[in-house]
Amino acid sequence: MEIIKFISLSEGEWKSMRSGHSLAFQHFEEVLSKINIEIINIKNPLIQEIISSSPFNESEAISPFRIDWEAESNWDSNDNESLSVGTCYLIPIPESEKKGKIIRTLGYSERIKAISNYQFLNDGTFSIQTKYDYTLSEEKIWFASKNVRCRSSIISSLDNQSIIQTSFASEIRKINQ
Amino acid sequence: MEIIKFISLSEGEWKSMRSGHSLAFQHFEEVLSKINIEIINIKNPLIQEIISSSPFNESEAISPFRIDWEAESNWDSNDNESLSVGTCYLIPIPESEKKGKIIRTLGYSERIKAISNYQFLNDGTFSIQTKYDYTLSEEKIWFASKNVRCRSSIISSLDNQSIIQTSFASEIRKINQ
Repeated sequence: MEIIKFISLSEGEWKSMRSGHSLAFQHFEEVLSKINIEIINIKNPLIQEIISSSPFNESEAISPFRIDWEAESNWDSNDNESLSVGTCYLIPIPESEKKGKIIRTLGYSERIKAISNYQFLNDGTFSIQTKYDYTLSEEKIWFASKNVRCRSSIISSLDNQSIIQTSFASEIRKINQ
Repeated sequence: MEIIKFISLSEGEWKSMRSGHSLAFQHFEEVLSKINIEIINIKNPLIQEIISSSPFNESEAISPFRIDWEAESNWDSNDNESLSVGTCYLIPIPESEKKGKIIRTLGYSERIKAISNYQFLNDGTFSIQTKYDYTLSEEKIWFASKNVRCRSSIISSLDNQSIIQTSFASEIRKINQ
C-alpha cells in the first residue's frame, strides 16, 4: 500500500513555512510552525473509538497517525494573538493500492470531523479531497527530497465553486544531532 | 496533444500572487505581478530562429507561446527597486501525447536558454524539469478552475542536491468587462 510508505516517510518533526493567498483581496499570510507526525497503534482506545463512530470497521483501517502543530509566528499580523495549536487524528481506509478514504478528526478548511478521499498521482504526489459543510478542500503533498515536503491546498466554496484561498507550505524535517 | 489544450487554456492575462520560501534562512518573499500568455504563429521569424539554433526542427515543434511578466510589487522589500519585467518564448517539442521537451529562451531559476522536460500527471498537472548550469528546477502547474492556475517550483542545487528555494503562485485570470 502506497499510503503506508507515505505515512512512514512523513513520520517525525517538521518546521513548516506556510503562505496563504486570499484571492479576492490579494492578501498574503505567512506562518511558521512546528509539526509532529506520529504513527499510532490501531489498538489505541482513541483510534478504536474514532473508527467505531465512523461508517468503517477496524479491519479496513491501516496505519493511523496523529498530527500535532503549533504555529510559531504569523508574520502577517502585527498582534501576536494568533498562536494556534492543534491535534488531528487520521485513519486511512484504503480501497486499492493507490486510493481510498481517510477519517480525520479535525478538518483542514473547517474544524469539523470529515471523511476525505485520497489518491496517489503517478509521480507519487498524495492528493486529498474533502467536502465540508460549506467548502471543498483539495490538498496535495509531495516529497521534494527525503527531508523536504511540499503541501498545497485550494479551498473553494461549495455554494458557487469560487476559489476562496490557496496555500503552500514547505516542510523541512528537523534533524536531531 | 495534451500540451496544445493546456497552452490554449492558459492563454490570456493573469494576476499572480507569488510566495517564495528560502529554506535555509526561513525567509518569505511575496510578489504581485501581471502575466500575459500569448500563442504565437510557428512561422514567426523569431520562433524560426530559436528553433534553428536548437537541436530540433520545425516539424517537431507545436504551439509556441510567449510569456510576458511584470512584477507590480514585492511586499517583502521596503525599497521598491525590485520591479522586474521579462519575456520568455517557449516552444514545445512533444514526444508523445503526455510528454516531451520545451525550448525556452529564458530559464526560470537561471536566466539562460534551456531545454526542459515536461510531462502531464494523471490529474492533468503539467510538470516541468529543467537542468541549468548550477541548479535543477521542478515546476508544476495545474488549473484550480478555468480562471485560477496554481504554480509550484522547487529549486535545488545540482552540486549537492540540497533544496534552495520553493515557491508557489496563485494566478487569477483578468476578466475584461
